This record gives sequence, C-alpha cells and structure tokens, in this order.
Amino acid sequence: MFVRINQSATSEQIAAIRSRATEAGLAVYEEPSARGLTLALLGPKGFDEKLGEQIAALPGVNAVARPSRAYRLSSQEFREEPTVVKVRDTVVGGGSLTLMAGPCSIESREQLFEVAAGVAAAGATLLRGGAFKPRSSPYAFQGLGLEGLRLLAEARERTGLPIITEVMEPAQVDMVAEFADVLQIGTRNMQNFSLLNAVGRTRMPVMLKRGLSGTIEEWLLAAEYILAAGNRQVILCERGIRTFETAARNTLDLNAVPILRRLTHLPVIVDPSHATGKRWMVAPMSYAGVAAGADGIMVEVHPKPEEAWSDGEQSLTLPMFSRLAGELRTIHSVVSPLHENPGEALGR
Amino acid sequence: MFVRINQSATSEQIAAIRSRATEAGLAVYEEPSARGLTLALLGPKGFDEKLGEQIAALPGVNAVARPSRAYRLSSQEFREEPTVVKVRDTVVGGGSLTLMAGPCSIESREQLFEVAAGVAAAGATLLRGGAFKPRSSPYAFQGLGLEGLRLLAEARERTGLPIITEVMEPAQVDMVAEFADVLQIGTRNMQNFSLLNAVGRTRMPVMLKRGLSGTIEEWLLAAEYILAAGNRQVILCERGIRTFETAARNTLDLNAVPILRRLTHLPVIVDPSHATGKRWMVAPMSYAGVAAGADGIMVEVHPKPEEAWSDGEQSLTLPMFSRLAGELRTIHSVVSPLHENPGEALGR
Amino acid sequence: MFVRINQSATSEQIAAIRSRATEAGLAVYEEPSARGLTLALLGPKGFDEKLGEQIAALPGVNAVARPSRAYRLSSQEFREEPTVVKVRDTVVGGGSLTLMAGPCSIESREQLFEVAAGVAAAGATLLRGGAFKPRSSPYAFQGLGLEGLRLLAEARERTGLPIITEVMEPAQVDMVAEFADVLQIGTRNMQNFSLLNAVGRTRMPVMLKRGLSGTIEEWLLAAEYILAAGNRQVILCERGIRTFETAARNTLDLNAVPILRRLTHLPVIVDPSHATGKRWMVAPMSYAGVAAGADGIMVEVHPKPEEAWSDGEQSLTLPMFSRLAGELRTIHSVVSPLHENPGEALGR
Amino acid sequence: MFVRINQSATSEQIAAIRSRATEAGLAVYEEPSARGLTLALLGPKGFDEKLGEQIAALPGVNAVARPSRAYRLSSQEFREEPTVVKVRDTVVGGGSLTLMAGPCSIESREQLFEVAAGVAAAGATLLRGGAFKPRSSPYAFQGLGLEGLRLLAEARERTGLPIITEVMEPAQVDMVAEFADVLQIGTRNMQNFSLLNAVGRTRMPVMLKRGLSGTIEEWLLAAEYILAAGNRQVILCERGIRTFETAARNTLDLNAVPILRRLTHLPVIVDPSHATGKRWMVAPMSYAGVAAGADGIMVEVHPKPEEAWSDGEQSLTLPMFSRLAGELRTIHSVVSPLHENPGEALGR
Repeated sequence: MFVRINQSATSEQIAAIRSRATEAGLAVYEEPSARGLTLALLGPKGFDEKLGEQIAALPGVNAVARPSRAYRLSSQEFREEPTVVKVRDTVVGGGSLTLMAGPCSIESREQLFEVAAGVAAAGATLLRGGAFKPRSSPYAFQGLGLEGLRLLAEARERTGLPIITEVMEPAQVDMVAEFADVLQIGTRNMQNFSLLNAVGRTRMPVMLKRGLSGTIEEWLLAAEYILAAGNRQVILCERGIRTFETAARNTLDLNAVPILRRLTHLPVIVDPSHATGKRWMVAPMSYAGVAAGADGIMVEVHPKPEEAWSDGEQSLTLPMFSRLAGELRTIHSVVSPLHENPGEALGR
Repeated sequence: MFVRINQSATSEQIAAIRSRATEAGLAVYEEPSARGLTLALLGPKGFDEKLGEQIAALPGVNAVARPSRAYRLSSQEFREEPTVVKVRDTVVGGGSLTLMAGPCSIESREQLFEVAAGVAAAGATLLRGGAFKPRSSPYAFQGLGLEGLRLLAEARERTGLPIITEVMEPAQVDMVAEFADVLQIGTRNMQNFSLLNAVGRTRMPVMLKRGLSGTIEEWLLAAEYILAAGNRQVILCERGIRTFETAARNTLDLNAVPILRRLTHLPVIVDPSHATGKRWMVAPMSYAGVAAGADGIMVEVHPKPEEAWSDGEQSLTLPMFSRLAGELRTIHSVVSPLHENPGEALGR
Repeated sequence: MFVRINQSATSEQIAAIRSRATEAGLAVYEEPSARGLTLALLGPKGFDEKLGEQIAALPGVNAVARPSRAYRLSSQEFREEPTVVKVRDTVVGGGSLTLMAGPCSIESREQLFEVAAGVAAAGATLLRGGAFKPRSSPYAFQGLGLEGLRLLAEARERTGLPIITEVMEPAQVDMVAEFADVLQIGTRNMQNFSLLNAVGRTRMPVMLKRGLSGTIEEWLLAAEYILAAGNRQVILCERGIRTFETAARNTLDLNAVPILRRLTHLPVIVDPSHATGKRWMVAPMSYAGVAAGADGIMVEVHPKPEEAWSDGEQSLTLPMFSRLAGELRTIHSVVSPLHENPGEALGR
Repeated sequence: MFVRINQSATSEQIAAIRSRATEAGLAVYEEPSARGLTLALLGPKGFDEKLGEQIAALPGVNAVARPSRAYRLSSQEFREEPTVVKVRDTVVGGGSLTLMAGPCSIESREQLFEVAAGVAAAGATLLRGGAFKPRSSPYAFQGLGLEGLRLLAEARERTGLPIITEVMEPAQVDMVAEFADVLQIGTRNMQNFSLLNAVGRTRMPVMLKRGLSGTIEEWLLAAEYILAAGNRQVILCERGIRTFETAARNTLDLNAVPILRRLTHLPVIVDPSHATGKRWMVAPMSYAGVAAGADGIMVEVHPKPEEAWSDGEQSLTLPMFSRLAGELRTIHSVVSPLHENPGEALGR
C-alpha cells in the first residue's frame, strides 16, 4: 500500500508507521517529494484492508492508497515527478535530450577511440559500446570482454563521456560495474530476474531494454525488480518488438512512449538502430521517437559500417551521426515544450 | 517489364512498342516524367527474357528493366517522383501537410456541422466522416448510409472542405463516389480485391488503409490492384497493426513511413486515433507520425466525445484538434526540410 | 436477450411474446431443442432490464437470460446442441469426420476430374476447388471463374461428392450459389460484412475461414452476421494465424478447437494446407487437428503438385491423401469417444 | 564443417584429422553412428573452402559437408538418428511416451508427496515441480528454493520417479544439479546464454523451453549453446508462443513439432498447461501434441487446484491426470507407427 505522510508528521510518528509495517512483514520504501513523503509498504500478499485501516489511523498518516497496478515503485501512483537519472556530469530525463552513441561491439582501440572522439564532438551525452555481446549463435563473436571494458574506461578518460555497456549475468555485475557508468540489461534478459536483482543491489544507473515480446506491464514489473532491490536509477529503452512484419528487423513501438509517460516516472530512451536494423531508417525513427516524447535515443555508430563485426547494416557513420544529433536538438527544442505543458484541453 | 523511352522517340515508335506489348498479351501503363516516358508492360506471367530483348531492340527504347518487386506501378522503379493526389483545391503529398479530421460516425446534422465548422476553422484540409460503418458486431450501429453521405456533401458546401468517407462493397462505389472526394478503403477490406478493382475503375482519389495484419508488401500489392485498374490517385494510411501488446488498441507501425518512402511514390497518412484508441495518445503519436515523414494525419474529432456513438474514447474535442493542428504545422515546418534533403551522407 | 419458453406454452402465448419483442424494435430468432424453445430477441441496443422484466412476466415464459458474449446466435448460451450442417447426402459436425479435399485452383477439366475421382475413391466427403481465387497480386492467376464452377458441378455429377468453393463478393453470391453446395468465405474476407450479409441471405451452408489476424471473438461475431441474416448453416474453419514465426507459412492455432467447442455450437474444420504451406506438415497437423476435436479437415490435393498453378508446395498427391484419409479415420475413431464423453472429472 | 569418416579409417587417421582442425582453431565434436563416425569442426568464422578441401583430402575422410543451417550439432545434418535422453530408468525420445507431471510450485511436503504418489500411480514417467520460480512480479511467491529441492529428492525416493526442476541462474546450477535428474531452462531464459553455457557444462539432461517469442531457429541455436558446451542430453519443450490472440494464455504452436522432427534429432515435449492456462484445454491439446508427433507432454497437477499458490487455473486434479495418461497411451499407440514409418509417398 501507499501511505501519504502529513507534512507535519514527526520523525517518531514516521518511525512508528515503519515499524508497524515491518511487524506485518512488509518492506518499506520512501519517496520524498515537494508535497510530502510517501511510503510504499510492500509484501508478497495483496492489499490487506484491515492493516490499511490500522495504518490510516496512525498519527502522521494523511491517507492510505491501494495500488491499482501490479508494479508499485515504478508507478506514478508512488512518485509523480519524473525521475532524473544522474550519470556523472550529465542527466537522463527531466526535459534533457540524451544522445547515446557508439559502436555495437568494441572491436579495437582504434575503432572505439575514433567513434568516441567523433560522437563526443557531435554532442553525444553518453558513449555506448558492447564488451559482452549476447549472440544468437554460440559460434558468433562474443565481445572482447574485460579488455573491452578497459578500452571503454580509457575512451571515457579521453572524451569525458560517461559510458554505458551491457552486463549479461549476475556474476559479471561487479566487474562491469567497476568500469561502467550505466549498466545495460539487454532485450533477451528483460525477465532474467536473477540479473535484475543483481543490478538492483548496485545502486548504479541501469538501462533496461524491453524484451522482444515484453508487454509494457511486464517491462515495468521487470523495472520493479530493480527498484525493489533498492535501486531507483532506472532508465527504460524501447528497442522494437517482434511482430509479423519483416520489412524491418523489428517493429519500433512508439506507442510505448506516451503510455510510459502516463504510467511511470522513469525516463524513456528509444533505440532505432536495433528496432529497424537499417541505417536509412535510423534518422526518421529518431525524429519520431523524440517527437513522441522520448528522453533521448541510443544509436549505433561505426567509422566504417561495412566492416563492422556485428550489426554493420544498422550503424551510422560519424558524419551521419553528427548531422542527426543537430537535427534532434532542433526537433527536441520544438516538441519539448508541447510535452511539458500539454494542457488540460488536450487530455494529455 | 519497365521500358524507358528515349526523349527523342517519335509517337509512331511509341505506338509500335505499345502494340508489340499488346500482341504479347501485356497491359500497358504510361508514366511521363521530367526525364522522359516510362512504360510498364504487365501480364500474368513473370518477366520474359526473350520478349525483353526484342523490346529493348525496338527504336525509341532506351532501356528495359526487370521489376525487382511483386508490385509494379506502385514501386519507385516505375515512378520516382512522389505522387501528389489532387483533391478539389487541396493536395495530398508533395511536401504539403494534410490534416483529415471529423467524427468517426456521422450521427446527425448538428453533430457533423459543428465538427466540420470547427475543424475547418482550425485548418483541417479534409473532412472525414463515416456514413457506412464496418462494425465487428451485426447488432452495432452501422451508420446513417445515404443520409450520411448527403450530410457530408452539405458540410462540404458550408465549409469548402473536401470529404473522405468509407466505401464497403463494390455495389456501393457509384453511390459513394457521387458524394465523396476521396473514397476510403477500411482496414478490414485491404485485401477485398473486388472492392479494390471497383474503386480502381472510378479514377477518383482513394485512401487505402493498411490491414491489421497486412505486411507492407501486401499493402502495396493491394494498392497495385487499384493502380492496375487504371487509378493512380492512391493514398496509403497506416492505422496500427495487431501485435501481442494490449496497452493500446493497436500498435502504430511508424517504421512503415520511411519504408514506404523508399519503396513507393504514393503519399502516406498516419491515423493515430485508430492506432491507439486513446485520446491522450493522439497528439504525441501525431507528432511522431509527422516527424517520421508522413504526409499528414487523419484524426477523429467529436464535439462531445463522451456521447459519441462509436469510438468516443479516441476522439479529440474541437479545442484539442485546434491546438494539435497548430502544433503539427510547426513540427512539419521543422522536419519537412530534413526529409526533403536527406543528403547522401545520411544514407537516406 | 434469450427467452426460454415453457414446454406447455401455447402458440398464442409465443406469438404474444414475439409481438412484444417486435414492438420494442427487436428481431426474433427461434431455437427449438429437446428441452424446449428458446427465443433470441436482438437489437442494436444492449440488454434492457425493464423490457427483460416485462417479458419475463409474460405467460409462457420460463426465464429471461442476459447474453454474456457479444455474439449471440452462435453462442452456446443460445443453443447447446452441436449444429450439424447437412450438405446433400453428407453432414458436417455431430460426431462425423469431414474430409474436404481437392485442388487449390481448378486448372482444367482433366486436372479437376482426376483429383475428384481420386479423393472420392479415398473417402473424401466433400470436393473443394477454387474457381474465383483471391490473390495478393493483381497479376497472378485469378481462377477460371464461371467455367470453373461448371466443371465443379460436372465433377459432382461424376463422383457424387458435394462441392465447396469460394465466393469473393456480394454480386457473385447468386452465381456461385447456383453451383456450389457450400459457399466458402476466405480468410481475407472474414470481416467483409457485405459479403457475410449476402451469404447469410442464401440459407445455404457457408464455411467461414478465420482471418489471418482474427481473434476468436471477432470470428464468432463474423459468423453472427451470417446467422443474424437468417442462415444457421455455418461451419468454421481454422486455417492458421499470422505470428512472428516464419518457419511455416502461418501458425495453425489448434487452441481454437477446444475454445470453439466450449463457446459455440458450430462445427469446426481445420485446414493444415494453408496453415503450414508445406506438404510434409499436412499429415501430422491433420492428425493433431482431429485429435484436438475438430469435425474434419480441408486439404489441397493435386495430381502433380510440382505443376500446380498455385500452392503446389502444400498440395498432397492422390496416394498421400488416400493414406491420410485412412489414418484420420483411425485416429478419429479413437479420439471421438474421448471428446464426446469428457466426464466431469476432466473439467471438459 | 561436417566430416564423414570412412568406416575403415584408423584411429591414427582420425587423430590426424582432429589435430588439423585444432591447428585451424576449430573445436571438434564427434558423432558415432551405425553408418560411421561424423566430426563437426566448428569455429567463429564461416565455412573455409580451402580448409574444407584440405581436410577432404586427408586419409580416412569420406566427405566434407558445409552446414546449411546456423545451428550445427542440433541439426540432422550432423546426426540423423533421434537423440534418446536417458534419465535414470526412463528415456525421453526414441518412440517412447514421456509423461512429466507435478505441481507448478512445490508448496509443502504434503502437497508434493500427494501429487508425486498420484502421478506415479497413473503412469507418469517424470515428476516435475518448481523450487525456484520465475515470476513477473518481484512481490509474488518465488518458490521454496533449496527446501523445495530436498522435498523433490525425497519424493523421488518414495516414488522412483526421476525429477525435473527449473534452474534460473548460472550460480544455482551446481546446487540444482545435485538434486535434479533433468535441469529445466524456462521460457524467459531461452536466450540467457550464460545459463545455457552453465548447464552445457554439467553433462546432465536439460529441457529447454521455447521463449515466448523465440523463433524455431533461435530455439535450436539456444540448444546449440548447450551442445557446443559439451552436453548432448537436450530435450526441447514447446510451451506456447505470444500472439495477438488472448482467448488462451498463449498460442500452442504445434507446427513446431513436425518442423523440429525434420530439422533436429532432439526429442520434443509439449506443455499444454502453460500454453493454454486453462485446465479444460489441457486434455485436447495433449491429444493434439501427441498426435502431431511429440515425444511426450508436461502437465501441471495439483491435489486442489483451487488452492494452488500459482497457476491453479491450469492444473489438473489427480483423477484428471490419471484418465489423461491412459488416453494418451492409447493415442500414442495409434499414431506412433504413423510417424515412425511415414513412407516416401507422404513426403514426410
């Protein structure tokens, strides 16, 4: 249940509420906001009417609300203000435009550094790059691993860009966390609950990609695993879903952007590279993603896409990214005010 | 096959090419362009190498090309320049921004005229309204029929807006064509081939909605039925596809917009009302559609959505539409130049 | 609403109930059964509580029930006993095993008669054959048309097999009905409501194929169009749905078989030829369809599949069909008792 | 590449072939069969024509074949005979009928032992039961964990049934392997490559469930991870895919059964409980699965489904399972010969 605390409540009163919840076997999560503190009291059982009444009667409690969604901490019922994820000197969410760019796989020092310098110059806000690569076939290139992480850290030194990279299993989390600024959970692992728990325990920013057949509700429940483990720094990334249409690799589901804006406080990034699989679709779908209200995009960039070890067909060149970054800043400056002040009349 | 004619070819030479094709049992379609005339010679059999060589050898022939797609007349291989569909004093395509708006169903003179006047004042370029309604249940309201068509014509008189309305069966085509400026083929009829043939024989503008599970190739082949029947005035409308996700009514497939821009010369409209089923999603998905490069949008507008006889949940009010129309003009003015001049470097 | 009539009700009482419904603007449908007569009183509005009470109070009325499904006449709430569709000397449904077989398209007298004789000898119960073919491309072979219908009728003369063939538009219904024993509505026309109305007015057996993305509820509502138009002779045919999987042409949804058995009284046929697109999958999926409880199968058979003008890859040869027919009779004899007497304990 | 070895090849010759492959950086896998030994030489790069020719020229080599599929060891190109997985005193595959049954979650000693005794008496061949449960929500019951494993082992002692249970992360593999006879990889983990590698290193039987949106090719590539890690004891389990249809929980894709029979040598189990989510669908879909050619089924059984902690709606009672087991043995005895001897004529 959600418990709204009176502005005037004393810390003793709050402690009493917490201990009543703990007695009842519930975990307690706090959410301070301008309008006061909210507590989420969560456990394996559903809403307990009687306990709700008891807690509502405690001093310092303004109101008790029953969650209407299966996800709790990721819901706007718990937190209304958008979550802004701080990543070194940049932020994701809160009206900013995030541009994550870099190669699909880290292939070599030269390749990574050339891309890193180029995307930094073009105004990227984070550098992406895969060191551990999930590949459908066991015989495909699986990434440079630890060496890739070291190269990423070096690229950060050179460019100042924070880095985001994928982590694939719980046992890797500590190692990847040592190097990365944002941990990425890939689409195949959206419901790898052990991994979600593991990154939830790090308190580091995590970007959770939507599964190929993940519903929006399942996606928010997956985010909930991370939040419930104690980590509120979660970014969602729409990267296309699997449908009957085969003209592009996947179907970018931009409906998800306004739906998430209504359901959750977490920031939303769009990845048009994986959603389309085609270089010439990246720019128009990036425009569309930003126009739909996304907090930014993640795109793949390679100095020579035709020589890329993976996903070359969808990688932008550096000049393409440079032009795109400028275009997106322009579009964002136009649409951002529309989203921030939708007005009652628009029903938004 | 496609036959590029020399600029210097005489009309006798062209006539000879046509008659050679006719002898071979092929239908002949002409496409004049700034760079000269192209003929499409089409028949039930595949490309005939020998006939191709014979025609390539005829005087006046520049080159013979084998189609690489199953659709022919709707392909950019046949026509490179965008098709601009003229509808009374307005156009669809060619860099313009089309705003089709109006009620889902025509319910009464008052309702229609109030919406028509409102959307005209807000800058809509076409008035939509359903007189014949395809409904999943035989017991649901099926539209006002002929009376609805008469009201639409009257609304056109009053506002000057051309009208678009759905036609559901071949036997209705003449009657609807008498009143409408654009014939709409609904999503359930995308592969109603008899109906496609019937509207193809009218030579009137036709808007073909994508089927719920229609691939882009099937959609272009459906358009091909209309073009092959002699009607080049075809507009495509993306209105959402059916996927596993149930958070919105359908999944708006904006990937389709850049894909169609690459494959066909026909203009593309996006319908966010049916694709989402939710009023509060219409504005962001309209932004996204225009940003992706669509030639315009079709939205449902109702004076009192909560009282609508059908689809009230997705209808905008008049003030909402008025605001949205202005926003879309702004976004279009920003993104339109990006799409018109993509540049080699962007691979677009 | 559904009105159960007392066994002892007089015809005057029934007439009074009917006229009360007619006054209220409702259409009246009768369903006699061993346990007495049921009336369905149906109109565009939802259940009218007050009218329901008034009718419940009329003499001769046993009970008034509110429909729980959007479809009414096709629901088991209206009719519990399985509908058995009589087609000349054979029946579809009611525990029999229907084997519909024949060529995809009728190509020639020789081809059709060879297949017809062969499948008759093997024990087919109906002959299928396409005279009007819905084809994705306007340039593909569209069927022999009227000539094909005449050949079908001749094949029926020779073999005694009743014939089933597709009708594609309302204006064709009379012509096709003159020749066919069962009118087939193809998958692309599942929601071609004008066509459903037209075949509903014929009172002839109709087989309604499921649309590629038709939900089971939409499918039953499509059947409802035919029933509401006055035709109760409806057979449903599951022929595969469109999903992300491309290893076969479509995904045969056998879940639909037990679901339909629970929701409707209409018989269910399975078409493994179109659902798989591959000859070597037809036998195992036919076994599975019959095992799941279908009333029969429809398969494509061609004397020389490699020379077929359409769908050769999925056609069985005559020896294959002959063997399959025997196998299915064996499987049916084993599973049919399991389905007919599921027992309380199985929850079926 | 695949290398067929001459029957007369000496062990020195084989050793020379192996060392040539190792020099070239390829891993070597052996497959002995009645017709002789086959080697698979596999590495990250594609087929090397030149190396292929060199190896073809080595003494003892009969032929070198280029794989036509992305999966190699799971393909029939590598091994033609069906893989029979030995699990204690029972087998999966090879013409036997496997019946895996038990509760969704292990809830208590009493619940598990009652089910275990009941399904053993009814002829189940394996006992299933979840100790670690993947749950969409972090607040749902996550299983009894280690205690559950201990109860499973005790149930095996009492009934003699081998046990299958899910493992969710690499770090759990050793612990689960200590108790289980078959390790189950759940649908959400089909592409959890770290986990696939981990169970691949155990050399224990593994049952790999298909992902909700996993294509058949991706599924076989996931199996390939396990095989490539050295474990050939892999069972595949079709458990429904995600489609637009919501009448059942998922869409059981029985097309997959004949497709897998053609592509792979691995045994295939069908899980109608998860694929339908409804008790009354379990029996008909089990019939259909066995009829389609599956090697067996996995079903959920609970003494009191209405009190189950998870998935009660889909659990059979013990009497239901008992009846179903008998029915499936009958159906299997009828269809098994049809699948084993398909005959050239049927193209199967």
